[in-house]
Amino acid sequence: MAPALLDRAETQRRLEPLLARAEGADLVVLPELCATGYAFAGREEAWAGAEEVGDSRFLEFLAGRCAAHGFDVVTGFAERHGDLLGNAAVLVGAEGPVASYRKLHLFHREKLYFEPGDLGVPVIERRGMRVAMLVCFDWAFPEVWRLAALGGADLVCHPANLVLHGYAQRAVPVHAQINGYFVVTANRVGRERQLEFTGMSLIAGPRGEILAQAPDHGDHVEVVQIDLARARDKQVTPNNDLLGDRRPECYGGLTSPVEPTR
Amino acid sequence: MAPALLDRAETQRRLEPLLARAEGADLVVLPELCATGYAFAGREEAWAGAEEVGDSRFLEFLAGRCAAHGFDVVTGFAERHGDLLGNAAVLVGAEGPVASYRKLHLFHREKLYFEPGDLGVPVIERRGMRVAMLVCFDWAFPEVWRLAALGGADLVCHPANLVLHGYAQRAVPVHAQINGYFVVTANRVGRERQLEFTGMSLIAGPRGEILAQAPDHGDHVEVVQIDLARARDKQVTPNNDLLGDRRPECYGGLTSPVEPTR
Repeated sequence: MAPALLDRAETQRRLEPLLARAEGADLVVLPELCATGYAFAGREEAWAGAEEVGDSRFLEFLAGRCAAHGFDVVTGFAERHGDLLGNAAVLVGAEGPVASYRKLHLFHREKLYFEPGDLGVPVIERRGMRVAMLVCFDWAFPEVWRLAALGGADLVCHPANLVLHGYAQRAVPVHAQINGYFVVTANRVGRERQLEFTGMSLIAGPRGEILAQAPDHGDHVEVVQIDLARARDKQVTPNNDLLGDRRPECYGGLTSPVEPTR
Repeated sequence: MAPALLDRAETQRRLEPLLARAEGADLVVLPELCATGYAFAGREEAWAGAEEVGDSRFLEFLAGRCAAHGFDVVTGFAERHGDLLGNAAVLVGAEGPVASYRKLHLFHREKLYFEPGDLGVPVIERRGMRVAMLVCFDWAFPEVWRLAALGGADLVCHPANLVLHGYAQRAVPVHAQINGYFVVTANRVGRERQLEFTGMSLIAGPRGEILAQAPDHGDHVEVVQIDLARARDKQVTPNNDLLGDRRPECYGGLTSPVEPTR
């Protein structure tokens, strides 16, 4: 869907019927920065739209929808924390916000107003599911997709506002496959200032298969049933396990701050 | 192409005209275990076919072809080292073997006779190119593709004997894309004992684009010209760099031997 830039009331008006169509689901995933829109002119606009997780009319609205329809929601969220701004994903239930992630890898102009994430890659147990959250450009960093798997994630919720055509939509199913879990990439559509968003939201399964894919424009709601047992069985052959076969003693270079050769 | 199981003379006979067709190339990549074939009945057969890198008639043969045609070759190679066996990739020039890699992630029955690799992911400077080598099932471990990038690789040579349909052929271009380098996956074809190999060898570029792809059967030689500068420019936007945007201080979990939650 397309949030309305800096118009929370209009965004909520758009969301309400879409969320009603997801009744029966356990978990709904919305796009990145769903509460505010994306294309801020600068830090002032971002700050004006942002809210604190513990004091947010947008998250209260979602909690109400959760209560009404019986699901939880993961939403993108411009987050004030102290004097800082984060590009967050928040898991909300009927009782309010349950858990947060702050985008570790910021894209382009986001660096002008958001702080890079400082909460790692949490995995939250919820309704028997183990859920991780990543946001948009995180798609290009295989490290965080692996950290989600090592944290036991069955499912990665991936709110996005993708502007590059097809890259993430091709990479995400491979992240799902090599980590053996489900991924929901909820990408926004529409145009905002100079930016055009690419839609093509998708749900991928543990073999990298596409379980659902939205078109590149227009609202789209799709409910897919998943079998968590498939994400917990990492066996590839009788002798191979996607995570058990890792060689962490050989991976030290991944945590070194050394600059690559140029 | 298809090596002849445990028949080095026949394999060399098959290779000779194929290599001649690659004259003019700088670097030729051959499949995994090209010197011996793959489907060993057990350790005895693997040992019988294996050679030492410094004392190998197969690598001598390739060095001769390098001298004749003016290229270097990366080949898969069953390697004796001491009393051990490795599933290696060896870079050979006209002067003989130049550098080796030993497969870090062994597939299925390979674990019955090969030792897991112990040489890390070396990056070799050769003819102005920075070359890394990975072997077959390494495709499922994003860590080693990233280590190659951090080591400065322009090009990853990936000899393979893939039996699972389509998985690696879909993942490899994504590894190329998120690491911003070239990859050559040279996969064998044909049947050997109970195994059928999937061919579809490919060359991928730094945007994940497919520069060449072989069919799923039959011999195939293709020469592709690549621009190394494209692999050295990791910029995605004026504010983003595929490697520079990493957050290694957040990636500690990748090197921990902790078992994942089940």
